Amino acid sequence: MTYCLAMRLDEGLLFMSDTRTNAGVDNISTFRKLHVFRPGDDRLFVLQSAGSLATTHEVLDRITYALGGPGDSLATVDHLYEAALYVGALGTEVANRHRATLGDNATATFVLGGQVGGEPADIMLVYPEGNYIRASDDRPFLQIGEAKYGKAWLDLAVHAGADLRTAAKIALSSMISTALANLSVGPPYDLGIYERDSYQLQHARIDGDSPYLSRLSDTWNEQMLAAVDLLPDVEPGDITVFPPDHDVAG
Amino acid sequence: MTYCLAMRLDEGLLFMSDTRTNAGVDNISTFRKLHVFRPGDDRLFVLQSAGSLATTHEVLDRITYALGGPGDSLATVDHLYEAALYVGALGTEVANRHRATLGDNATATFVLGGQVGGEPADIMLVYPEGNYIRASDDRPFLQIGEAKYGKAWLDLAVHAGADLRTAAKIALSSMISTALANLSVGPPYDLGIYERDSYQLQHARIDGDSPYLSRLSDTWNEQMLAAVDLLPDVEPGDITVFPPDHDVAG
Repeated sequence: MTYCLAMRLDEGLLFMSDTRTNAGVDNISTFRKLHVFRPGDDRLFVLQSAGSLATTHEVLDRITYALGGPGDSLATVDHLYEAALYVGALGTEVANRHRATLGDNATATFVLGGQVGGEPADIMLVYPEGNYIRASDDRPFLQIGEAKYGKAWLDLAVHAGADLRTAAKIALSSMISTALANLSVGPPYDLGIYERDSYQLQHARIDGDSPYLSRLSDTWNEQMLAAVDLLPDVEPGDITVFPPDHDVAG
Repeated sequence: MTYCLAMRLDEGLLFMSDTRTNAGVDNISTFRKLHVFRPGDDRLFVLQSAGSLATTHEVLDRITYALGGPGDSLATVDHLYEAALYVGALGTEVANRHRATLGDNATATFVLGGQVGGEPADIMLVYPEGNYIRASDDRPFLQIGEAKYGKAWLDLAVHAGADLRTAAKIALSSMISTALANLSVGPPYDLGIYERDSYQLQHARIDGDSPYLSRLSDTWNEQMLAAVDLLPDVEPGDITVFPPDHDVAG
């Protein structure tokens, strides 16, 4: 499986992806799921993927080789939503071609983020059906893959005013919580930071054995455990007693 | 949906269940999913349920009315595992009878915990297929329903040596995180605390509008957000840069 998340903040965009892939539990490998396309000075795209790795790779190849050609491509779209529909169309086309042998296992889901021309930077969730949604105004993040484990924390912490440095730490703590709870998500973790109107992505990998990741993980876990001690105890006045379903004494 | 969790600790057992039920998103109600049976001075059972509410209610009725009869019941089992198999058999029998009209939607999953005779107290996950597992030695908790949202926190915090008061706070923080991320889980929350060898359950409800729950929730959220500020920043030395998939400049 996979866990990818993206945030749309006032300062820019933040992307984080794990790299673990598995075909069954005994065929585990590491593949990049955060891809960067800069097919012009006025445009920057980040594509994160979950689902079929084969479909994803075919989509990536078709995106890449279309860039030099005469037809539609990420180099020709005028708006980010056109790029989302373009990626969605490629995804459904590739998945449909393999449906006879793979059924729904050939589908892939994407997060596409970036900026085109002078339009605002944004992030979009591109469904296997080829349509898309933008991130919500209230909770400006998107997730694909194993999204549930880290969602409560994002619901609590992500808001448009968060700065990109803080956002990176929020994303990493959501990621390490997910990896703790689900073996199908794991390091290295790929991070992309996009400052608004820069048309350049700062993107880099944080390795699983990096001292930084240990330090972050230890601090996060210590703080979480320390928080329990600060929680108020349940007192008798806080609760109402209900009768048992069956009691020999009653 | 539902979220129930149970822990097996050195001091005893802890149970927590939400009460939200939904048949579609426009038929939301409140039902108890934590049930208490004490059919003798030497035995105490707690049954938590997820899945079909109708199947659960039929199982509960059959458990209750069997207690007064001559056949097998929770009053006659000699071991906790026999109680798990008894509940599992009732669950599969009821679900199978409704399969023609409901398919797999008639199934229910249970956590059964308690103590019988002088044997150790334990918790068991009873599958819709009628079989069961005990909680693991390393991570002595079980979850049913919407288990993913609150799992990372339990993986981190639950260990057999935790005292029951602390365990209640861990369970509540897992519950409020889940409810924050998923509308199908919600208060009031039912809490059961079983002290080893007591054969009595302290069980009570924490209402959604209780000042205690607000206090707990506020403290938990503040502590989580404060933890971010203590996390180390990503520095250039912590990361390795990878090349973009396509760069007009390259």
